[in-house]
Amino acid sequence: IGPGKGRRGYLRPETAQGMFVNFPRLLRFYREKLPFGAVQIGKSYRNEISPRQGVLRLREFTQAEAEIFIDPTDKTEPRFKDVASSELTLYPASIQEAGEEPIQMRLGEAVAEGTIAHESLAYYINLTYEFLTASGIDPKRLRFRQHRDDEMAHYAADCWDAEAYLDRFGWVELVGIADRTDYDLQAHTRVSGMELGVFKEYEKPKRQKVIKIKPKMNYIGPKFKKRAKQVVKTLEKLSLGEISGETITIEVDGEEIRLGSEAFTIETLIEEISGEKIIPHVVEPSFGLDRIIYTILEHSYREETVEDEVRKVMELPEKIAPIKAAVLPLLTKDELITPAKKIETKLKENGIQTTYDDSGTIGRRYRRNDEIGTPYAITIDYTTLEDETVTIRDRTTMKQIRRPIKEIEYLITRLIRREEKFNVP
Amino acid sequence: IGPGKGRRGYLRPETAQGMFVNFPRLLRFYREKLPFGAVQIGKSYRNEISPRQGVLRLREFTQAEAEIFIDPTDKTEPRFKDVASSELTLYPASIQEAGEEPIQMRLGEAVAEGTIAHESLAYYINLTYEFLTASGIDPKRLRFRQHRDDEMAHYAADCWDAEAYLDRFGWVELVGIADRTDYDLQAHTRVSGMELGVFKEYEKPKRQKVIKIKPKMNYIGPKFKKRAKQVVKTLEKLSLGEISGETITIEVDGEEIRLGSEAFTIETLIEEISGEKIIPHVVEPSFGLDRIIYTILEHSYREETVEDEVRKVMELPEKIAPIKAAVLPLLTKDELITPAKKIETKLKENGIQTTYDDSGTIGRRYRRNDEIGTPYAITIDYTTLEDETVTIRDRTTMKQIRRPIKEIEYLITRLIRREEKFNVP
Repeated sequence: IGPGKGRRGYLRPETAQGMFVNFPRLLRFYREKLPFGAVQIGKSYRNEISPRQGVLRLREFTQAEAEIFIDPTDKTEPRFKDVASSELTLYPASIQEAGEEPIQMRLGEAVAEGTIAHESLAYYINLTYEFLTASGIDPKRLRFRQHRDDEMAHYAADCWDAEAYLDRFGWVELVGIADRTDYDLQAHTRVSGMELGVFKEYEKPKRQKVIKIKPKMNYIGPKFKKRAKQVVKTLEKLSLGEISGETITIEVDGEEIRLGSEAFTIETLIEEISGEKIIPHVVEPSFGLDRIIYTILEHSYREETVEDEVRKVMELPEKIAPIKAAVLPLLTKDELITPAKKIETKLKENGIQTTYDDSGTIGRRYRRNDEIGTPYAITIDYTTLEDETVTIRDRTTMKQIRRPIKEIEYLITRLIRREEKFNVP
Repeated sequence: IGPGKGRRGYLRPETAQGMFVNFPRLLRFYREKLPFGAVQIGKSYRNEISPRQGVLRLREFTQAEAEIFIDPTDKTEPRFKDVASSELTLYPASIQEAGEEPIQMRLGEAVAEGTIAHESLAYYINLTYEFLTASGIDPKRLRFRQHRDDEMAHYAADCWDAEAYLDRFGWVELVGIADRTDYDLQAHTRVSGMELGVFKEYEKPKRQKVIKIKPKMNYIGPKFKKRAKQVVKTLEKLSLGEISGETITIEVDGEEIRLGSEAFTIETLIEEISGEKIIPHVVEPSFGLDRIIYTILEHSYREETVEDEVRKVMELPEKIAPIKAAVLPLLTKDELITPAKKIETKLKENGIQTTYDDSGTIGRRYRRNDEIGTPYAITIDYTTLEDETVTIRDRTTMKQIRRPIKEIEYLITRLIRREEKFNVP
């Protein structure tokens, strides 16, 4: 890097560390209260000896990671109660070691019996499950496998991989969700010398005995004159370990001074302490995006026979489909093209990704959109010219409904958000 | 890269080339019709000898590029008429060389008098202008400077830089918009051996004289028997250059055969040719995103004195502001917090990035949101509890209006899209 060949550059093996380095800034952003988190997406690099399996094993891959900083003494999660009844396919280490099959288990139970280490980890396992299935991954081909002792990082308290089943590759890790404890923050603190902790207030301030040295001014003042101020300062700074017996020896301006009980008293005070500095632990869900996209495509794809022809369908969830609606004039005629283009523009203005297609038969255009996962196709036909209605076709069922043009963008928005179902009257 | 140290890895200096490599795929995607384009965003790398000026000169930077493939014989752009009256600050090469100042000029005029090479380039210059100003860059501190002959790449037909004025660095390039001709496609064709062109249909098929060799079957058949078929095939494949005089010598199965007019006739035909293969030219707008974001922040920031205090405002356009609305209970009281949190949830469900804040005085919370550019602040007060209305405060004017809660998400959506103005009654 730079001029000449002197300096080596390195590519990061994970996106995570940037977030640890930014810890002081994040702490301030979140106004110094746990728990808080950050997310990062970007390229990471591994020097794979033999990259293979398509996008599954890449030297440059896309990673999305979250770091959730939590209180090490309290790993409960207030929102956990909302997901405790969620039932997932779990594959705990003990069951793997016994050579048995994965089990269905509610997260509440898994935490209660200690299968998953704590609520916070279980909460993010569930969030991962919801993200993956909402993105189009088949829950029946998805499981959460716990790391066995022999594969878990030495610093991790617990770690679960979201694994998906792929036709060609078997079970493949998509996401790792680990409690990495305070390993990273401690490591950065050690190397940088900057303490990466949070001041945690006690619920009630703690009262604590404190022993203090109190200089006697009426003795020190006249005796040390100009140096009196410095003697006092030095005395007050002493730690209790430095007081031995009845006298104290301090150093002021290079001179040793021995002081006895004429110069100070030792007092015992009760102080209120409002909190202490703690090093947060971190729950880290780490997503391999290339693999996730591959899995979404495989799990969403299906073929069926319709009228003696193979229909290829990409059953992408509405939110994930790159194109939400296709606008199709029934025929390539100006009187149909003009209103079709108007509808296309209107949908786009409403933030709905829309494609316009007038090339080929209507059947072929439906199939083309089925294949790329477009959930809805809007067809403009001669009835449109009579009564300002269009048909809307559902990719999954191939059923059609007829609706007024003026309701289209509202309807499509609600369908995409699943606020409304596609109901054939 | 890989095992051992044998192989070197390189980091790409621009995102563009991936799109040229993908040209055949793009061509198919766009069903083989010009013009078409692709966009790419990602990291690019330059081995800067001395990276400096904050995010302006980085070794790893974020680049967004578009490649618009156009017909080299027709660089008009149908949508250009919609932007021809757009007036921009232009700094043509000739004016730079004359030591004069940039000028205000309409794009229609600039193309007509040859200042900008053609409509397509001018169209993308305007699109760049609209993108940058819509993102919050001050049009008064933005100009388009043409490359002079001594700085333009040898293959470029014309090139303009969008430059912004920055307090600390003067005029800085944000975007380069170039007509790179067919340089990249030709270069990839040369090295890969794969022809990267488009078949362009003529408006009317062209009629063209073709001279063809027609074998006489009644002579060749009996004479060559089993080999007759091969003799015919070889004859038909001959190019006209290979016919010299009255006889032709061909080679079949390693044997030379000399044929005279008894074996073939030469016919002149008129053939229809429907089109030809052309190599597209490319217009490439290339955006340096780190610099653009820096410029947006600088141009959006202002300070003003309000009630003897400095108010810091980040005047980000609504679309760009990372948070669109802040929901603020007037006081930290449960009866105000509960409806506030409900409004926050409702806005988020409608895809509006929303923050909730109940820490500190209301004035301090307004200022905090002014500083990060949140365009609207919604305050829940005791009147809310009486009549289900809230106040909405506009960041720019600090004016407030009162509206029913049930209209809020619709109003905020329309304000963000600028479909409605913030009107104080």
